[in-house]
Amino acid sequence: MTQYTPQPTKLETSGGQGYLRVATEEAWWPQEVVAVYRGMLERGEGGPGFHSLIGHYLTSQSDRAKFVVSRLADTGELRLADMDAAGVDHAVLSLTSPGTNSLEPALGTQVATIANDRLAEACAANPARFSGLATLGFEEPDSAVKELDRAINQLGLKGVVCNSHIRGRYLSDTAFWPILEAIEACDVPIYLHPQTPNDSMISTLLESGLDGAIFGFAIETSMHALKIVTSGVLDRFPKLRIVLGHMGEALPFWLYRFDYMHKGQVVSKRYEAIKPLELTPSDYLKRNFWYTSSGMPWGPTIDYVRKVVGADRVMYAMDYPYEYAPDEVRMQDQLDWTLAEKKMFFEDIPVSVFGLDRDAMTS
Amino acid sequence: MTQYTPQPTKLETSGGQGYLRVATEEAWWPQEVVAVYRGMLERGEGGPGFHSLIGHYLTSQSDRAKFVVSRLADTGELRLADMDAAGVDHAVLSLTSPGTNSLEPALGTQVATIANDRLAEACAANPARFSGLATLGFEEPDSAVKELDRAINQLGLKGVVCNSHIRGRYLSDTAFWPILEAIEACDVPIYLHPQTPNDSMISTLLESGLDGAIFGFAIETSMHALKIVTSGVLDRFPKLRIVLGHMGEALPFWLYRFDYMHKGQVVSKRYEAIKPLELTPSDYLKRNFWYTSSGMPWGPTIDYVRKVVGADRVMYAMDYPYEYAPDEVRMQDQLDWTLAEKKMFFEDIPVSVFGLDRDAMTS
Repeated sequence: MTQYTPQPTKLETSGGQGYLRVATEEAWWPQEVVAVYRGMLERGEGGPGFHSLIGHYLTSQSDRAKFVVSRLADTGELRLADMDAAGVDHAVLSLTSPGTNSLEPALGTQVATIANDRLAEACAANPARFSGLATLGFEEPDSAVKELDRAINQLGLKGVVCNSHIRGRYLSDTAFWPILEAIEACDVPIYLHPQTPNDSMISTLLESGLDGAIFGFAIETSMHALKIVTSGVLDRFPKLRIVLGHMGEALPFWLYRFDYMHKGQVVSKRYEAIKPLELTPSDYLKRNFWYTSSGMPWGPTIDYVRKVVGADRVMYAMDYPYEYAPDEVRMQDQLDWTLAEKKMFFEDIPVSVFGLDRDAMTS
Repeated sequence: MTQYTPQPTKLETSGGQGYLRVATEEAWWPQEVVAVYRGMLERGEGGPGFHSLIGHYLTSQSDRAKFVVSRLADTGELRLADMDAAGVDHAVLSLTSPGTNSLEPALGTQVATIANDRLAEACAANPARFSGLATLGFEEPDSAVKELDRAINQLGLKGVVCNSHIRGRYLSDTAFWPILEAIEACDVPIYLHPQTPNDSMISTLLESGLDGAIFGFAIETSMHALKIVTSGVLDRFPKLRIVLGHMGEALPFWLYRFDYMHKGQVVSKRYEAIKPLELTPSDYLKRNFWYTSSGMPWGPTIDYVRKVVGADRVMYAMDYPYEYAPDEVRMQDQLDWTLAEKKMFFEDIPVSVFGLDRDAMTS
């Protein structure tokens, strides 16, 4: 028994506690993606971050890795049993990291279509328990914009996942702005999900075993979000909605400092990339961003983030199957909040931000 | 007028408010170091992080850069006037980043000795207002251990500053452990101060203007501290005392996650570098580390850190002259704490951690 195997306690489900528990950062992959990844590993493609992450999960014989791999591919018996045991009523699934972001552009476009079809099938088979986010081949923006339309308007997916860097490039790069424009126009959120740091910055982290979920994921993703903020893209697309996991990858820790230092850099004209913005960095982090508790189920941190970005921006996620500890659900159930606040966190904000079908969940 | 020029308000000083204000991360450099840096810039030495940081300050004509450079070298009229205006009774000075850490080993050793002499002279000239931390040439450990003894026991300096990476290497590297052993034996703290990220990880940050105080400093330094924690060096030297600025460079945000993920990595044997430790990562962060409010004067973040690491580990710093905003002193004076808590934060913890001479401060 490790901490990653299901625990026997069955929490009360289906709203008996006064709210549905909607988990919003729940990882999944179809077998077609696994096959692509295996081929890349065999051919030595994908870079050091890809090999550290996917190489580990697809080759390790540890209980943790085997648990994760068996659950990632499942949207049936295994996953539903774990959701039941943890008391998770509904899961918003997304293609796990690195998704299509490590693939050659044409392959990324092709795999995105397959992944979106498979995810839509899983959601259609059990709409009470599953919704899904679309993946895109970001390096082919024209195709990505078309696939976005298909995924949202035909397949019924509820937003987009971007597994952080796109072979070392970031959404702050204007090449990707047509995709952001289309996402804003669709009025769906984009979940900026962690990945291992890009090849140009991973070596120091990798040598210490810090490139993954313990640290590297967070700094890669917080850097990505900060690049988006400072690039001015949120002045261009002010209604863009971005969701960050892991309580915002520590960005809420630095709100004061971002504003102070950004102002100083603008005044001193130190960098061409740092320019005046319509708002302060912290304003964007309180206007365009939402935050989930994936892998960060601890009350003090959740309460801090609620305090500094607003409780109406903070919602529940588990990060299954990477993080599967039913006790963590209970930790969050027992936070010192009113029932209305818990309902907002576990149910209302997820339903609102992702436009979920509450009737389907309770049917 | 920019935010970096002194503001007219004079706060009550010298303990009239019920406590002394001791600022613990206050930057300084002697002209000999400036001369070395100018030579390195001219010869293109030092790497991209050095050029981004020192190149900016020594060449920019912005008000901010000129203010910083004029104040860094001063331990007389300019600095004392600013301390008076802000209500800072006593400053713990240290050689500003990158200190000796970007120099060739023999030069680093040589410059450390000069810098320690100059700093000791400044402190001796005004012991009521100044104490200092020693710098070391870390890449020559034998010399560094001797210089540590001289700096602490002959010059009367109060601890050591390490400006994060040492030409890309970290204190987790066993090559530096003799120095850490000597610091532990001396019973003085080591202040782990930010620097620009090492050459192997800076490019992505630099292209977006994020390598400095807005973000890169923090992730460089939090990574360094986490490398120290996971290396096991704190099992070897359990009494080592490490001070982090900027409210701990966000490490307190991740306490729960560090423990969960470290345990998972140990169990899965994913990395050779991640091994079982006597304590959890968060235990070390609550046993061996202290935290200052340099550049992070904002109540919600300070209160969060006090809550999760303990109020007896959190103390005041300004980060002068990089951060000089007397209003920030007032923000911290007015936190919703008892007078005893304010005294602990502004005076008692600095005196205790750095072994300062309280009588000298009030003489």
